[in-house]
Amino acid sequence: MTRPFRHTHLLGIEGLEASDVAQILDAAEVFYEVSRRPVRKVPTLRGKSVINLFFEASTRTRTSFELAGKRLSADVVNISTSTSSVTKGETLLDTVQTLQAMHPDVVVIRHSASGAPHYVSERVGCSIVNAGDGAHEHPTQALLDAFTIRRAKGTLSKLVVTICGDVAHSRVARSNALLLRLFGSEVRVVGPRTLMPSEVESLGVKVFDRLEPALEGADVVMVLRIQRERLEGALLPSMREYSRTFGISPRTLGYAKPDAIVMHPGPMNRGVEISPEVADHARSAILDQVEAGVAVRMAVLYLLAGEAGAGPGTQG
Amino acid sequence: MTRPFRHTHLLGIEGLEASDVAQILDAAEVFYEVSRRPVRKVPTLRGKSVINLFFEASTRTRTSFELAGKRLSADVVNISTSTSSVTKGETLLDTVQTLQAMHPDVVVIRHSASGAPHYVSERVGCSIVNAGDGAHEHPTQALLDAFTIRRAKGTLSKLVVTICGDVAHSRVARSNALLLRLFGSEVRVVGPRTLMPSEVESLGVKVFDRLEPALEGADVVMVLRIQRERLEGALLPSMREYSRTFGISPRTLGYAKPDAIVMHPGPMNRGVEISPEVADHARSAILDQVEAGVAVRMAVLYLLAGEAGAGPGTQG
Amino acid sequence: MTRPFRHTHLLGIEGLEASDVAQILDAAEVFYEVSRRPVRKVPTLRGKSVINLFFEASTRTRTSFELAGKRLSADVVNISTSTSSVTKGETLLDTVQTLQAMHPDVVVIRHSASGAPHYVSERVGCSIVNAGDGAHEHPTQALLDAFTIRRAKGTLSKLVVTICGDVAHSRVARSNALLLRLFGSEVRVVGPRTLMPSEVESLGVKVFDRLEPALEGADVVMVLRIQRERLEGALLPSMREYSRTFGISPRTLGYAKPDAIVMHPGPMNRGVEISPEVADHARSAILDQVEAGVAVRMAVLYLLAGEAGAGPGTQG
Repeated sequence: MTRPFRHTHLLGIEGLEASDVAQILDAAEVFYEVSRRPVRKVPTLRGKSVINLFFEASTRTRTSFELAGKRLSADVVNISTSTSSVTKGETLLDTVQTLQAMHPDVVVIRHSASGAPHYVSERVGCSIVNAGDGAHEHPTQALLDAFTIRRAKGTLSKLVVTICGDVAHSRVARSNALLLRLFGSEVRVVGPRTLMPSEVESLGVKVFDRLEPALEGADVVMVLRIQRERLEGALLPSMREYSRTFGISPRTLGYAKPDAIVMHPGPMNRGVEISPEVADHARSAILDQVEAGVAVRMAVLYLLAGEAGAGPGTQG
Repeated sequence: MTRPFRHTHLLGIEGLEASDVAQILDAAEVFYEVSRRPVRKVPTLRGKSVINLFFEASTRTRTSFELAGKRLSADVVNISTSTSSVTKGETLLDTVQTLQAMHPDVVVIRHSASGAPHYVSERVGCSIVNAGDGAHEHPTQALLDAFTIRRAKGTLSKLVVTICGDVAHSRVARSNALLLRLFGSEVRVVGPRTLMPSEVESLGVKVFDRLEPALEGADVVMVLRIQRERLEGALLPSMREYSRTFGISPRTLGYAKPDAIVMHPGPMNRGVEISPEVADHARSAILDQVEAGVAVRMAVLYLLAGEAGAGPGTQG
Repeated sequence: MTRPFRHTHLLGIEGLEASDVAQILDAAEVFYEVSRRPVRKVPTLRGKSVINLFFEASTRTRTSFELAGKRLSADVVNISTSTSSVTKGETLLDTVQTLQAMHPDVVVIRHSASGAPHYVSERVGCSIVNAGDGAHEHPTQALLDAFTIRRAKGTLSKLVVTICGDVAHSRVARSNALLLRLFGSEVRVVGPRTLMPSEVESLGVKVFDRLEPALEGADVVMVLRIQRERLEGALLPSMREYSRTFGISPRTLGYAKPDAIVMHPGPMNRGVEISPEVADHARSAILDQVEAGVAVRMAVLYLLAGEAGAGPGTQG
C-alpha cells in the first residue's frame, strides 16, 4: 500500500484506468479485514479531517463515509443542506472555499447538479470525493460494487453484468458501466424505453427492452432503485406493471446463470424492482455491498489523504 | 467488572432479573466516577462503533448515549429520521440490516412503534439497545432512575415509589414499575382515570385516582411529563385543572415522606405537572438523573460491546 | 501558554481587557500553526467534552467550533434546535442545566435572544461560549477578525477600520467595535441611516452616511452581510440601490488606503454588499478569517477548558 495514488480527487470512474481501480480495490481488501476485527480502527489518518458535505439526504452513503473516516482515526464533520449556509444564498464555490480554509484533507460532496464536484475540485486545494452528483457519477458506489463482484466472481473481466431499471436517471448505472468496461466485461442495460438515456450507446453497453434476453447468461444482476415518482408519467408503466415486466423475482432471475449474484444499491423498494424472495436469497449480495462500502471508502480516503496520497492535503 | 453480561441486547426491563440490573448499576458506579474526573474518558471501547438510530427526536437521550459512547472511546454515528432512508420507503429491517453490514457493535434505537427494537434484534447480529419504543419500554431511563434512587436511598427494596401522571402513554412508567417490582418495592400510580392504562394492574402496581393517598408515605415521587396535546380531549382536565389536581407542588409534596426525593424524566413542563419550586428544590433529583444517565449508558454499552460482553460484536 | 485565563466564560468582548484579547490571540498563533501541520491534532483536551448548542442554523461557526474541539482531541456533541427539546416547551435554562449534568467542559451557545448566554452562564457550572446572541455579541468572530488584522497589519492599534452595512442588526459589528476600541483603533460605521443602531455613538465609533468619506484612509474595510429580507421596507434602498450606494466594489475600495484589506464574516451575497472582484481580490482577507476562526476557537476552548483554564470544568 505504499505506491502513491496518482489522483488528487475521486470525481468519477471516468478518468480512472483499470490500474487505478485495482489499486483502490486492493487497498480496500486490507481495510475490509480491519472492519471485521474486534478493534475496527487504525491510526492511518490521525490528525486529518474529512468533511461530509451533503446537499442531498443520504443515510447509507453518509454513514458509510463517516464510519470509514472514523475507523481511519480522522476527524469527521457532517454538514447537511438543511443547516447549511447555502440556504442563505451562498454559492457552492464559496461554501467549499470556506470549508477549505479550515484545512480539511478531504471534502466528500453529494450534490444534485451533475459536475458540481468537478467544478469545485478545480478551484480548491483539498481533495474532493464525489459521493453522487445528479444523474452523472457515483464512483464509490461503482467501486464497492466492483469489490463485491471481484470477491464473488474472482474477477472483473469477461463477466456479463445486467443493469435493470431506471438507467436514465442513475449515476450508479453510469459509473458501473464505465468501470466494468475498463475490465472488458459485457454490460447490458434493460428497462422501460422511456427510462433509457438517449446517449446510452456511448457508454458502450448493450441495450435491451425485455428482461429475459437481457438476463440470459448474466453473471451479475444489478437492480436499480426505481423512484416511485418516476412512474407517474403517462408514457410509463404503473408500479404493478413495472414489477411484472422489469422486477427481479425468482422467476425472472431464472434466466441468469445459476450462480449469478443479485445486487442493489439500496434503499430497496421490496415488491417493486426486486421481490422479497430475491432480496433475501443466498445469491443476494446486497448486504455484501454495504459491507464493502465502508472498506472501499476507507481505501479512497487513505489513498487521497494518507501517506500514499498525492493530494495537497498531505503536504501540510 | 469481568463477569460477562448474560444478554446480547437491552430491549426492556422485562426479561431482566434483579441480578442483571444490579450488574448494570454496579458497572455504572465505576463510570459515574469516570464522568466526574478531569479526564472523562476511558479506552474501553476503542475501535468499537455505536450507531444511534433515532426515529423520534430526542435531545437528552441521544446526547447522553453519544457522550457515553465517546467517553468509552467508541466511534459514534448519529442517524435521525429526517435524513434517513426511511423517508424513501425502506423498511425498518432493511435499514437496520444495512447498518449492521457496516459492523457496528451496538445500534441504539428509538422508534414510535412498540416492539420495534425486539423485532430487529431477532434478525440482526449486532447488539440492540432500546432507547424508547412507543408506549412500551425505555429501559435505560428506568436504569438511570434506579441508579439515582439507589444513590439517594441506599437501596431499591422496600421503598414506596409513586408515579404521577400520564401512565397510559408512558414507557418510562412501565419500565420503572417493572424494575422496582424486581426489588420488592411498592409502586403506586396516580393520574386522571383516562390516562391510566387498561392493563395497569398487570404491572403489579397500586392504582390511585387522588394524589394525596398515593403520595402518603412515598420515598420517591416520580413525576411524568404530561404531553399538552393529551389534555385536549373532552374527558380530560384542562392544563390548569391538571396542575391543581395532579401537579407536584410544595403543598402536595407535603404528603410524601419528609425525605422523599422528586424525579422527572424531562423535559419538564414547569407549572403543569411540576411546580418550579419543586423542580428546583433540594429534594429534586432531576439533574442527578441526567448525570446518572451518561454513567448508566456507559455501563450498558460496556457490558454489551466491551470485553465483558456476550454479544456477537465482540467476537470479531 | 501557562498563564491561567482569568475568565470562566467567553460571553462577549464587553468585559474583556486588551490583555485578555492578546492572550487569546497569542494562544491562537500556536494553534494556527497546528492547523497547518500534516497532523492537525493535539491531545490538549483529551477527555474533555464540548457541546455545540445552536438555536440558530450556522454552517461555518458550528463547523469551526466542531473542528476546533476535535483538533484539541475533545469529544464534541452537536445539538441543533430542530432536534432539541426546546420544541417540547422546555426552558432554555432547563436545557442547559440538563446538558451541564452530563459534565461538559464547555457549552457553545448560539441563540436569537440577546443575553441568552449571559443568563445561563450565571446559573450553570460549566464554561459558556457565546457563538452569537441576537444582535448583541459574537465574540469569537471579533477575535478571529482581530487575529486576521493583526497578522495583516502587525498591530491592532492606531488603525482605521470601516464597518459597512447593516450595523443595527449586527452582532459582528458590535463585537468588533468593542474589541478595536480596546486597542485604540478608530472605528467608523457606514450604512443606510435606517440600519444604524440608535445607540451607535455609545460604541465610540464615528458614524457616516456616505461610503466615500467613511472609507478614506481606511486600513481595514469590514463588509457586513446584508440580509435580503431587511431591504424590503419602504424606507430602505432596493438591493440594486444598496449595491450602488454601499456595496464594496473596486471603485469604492479605491477610497481606502492602497494596502487596505477587505473582510466579510460570510456568507457573502456576491453582487450585493460586495462585488465578486473584491471578494476574490488579493486584498481580500475573507478566507484568512475562516482559517483564523478554527485557530481562535481552539485557543478559546483551550483557555477555558485546558490546564490553563480557570473554569470549574477543569477541577473535576
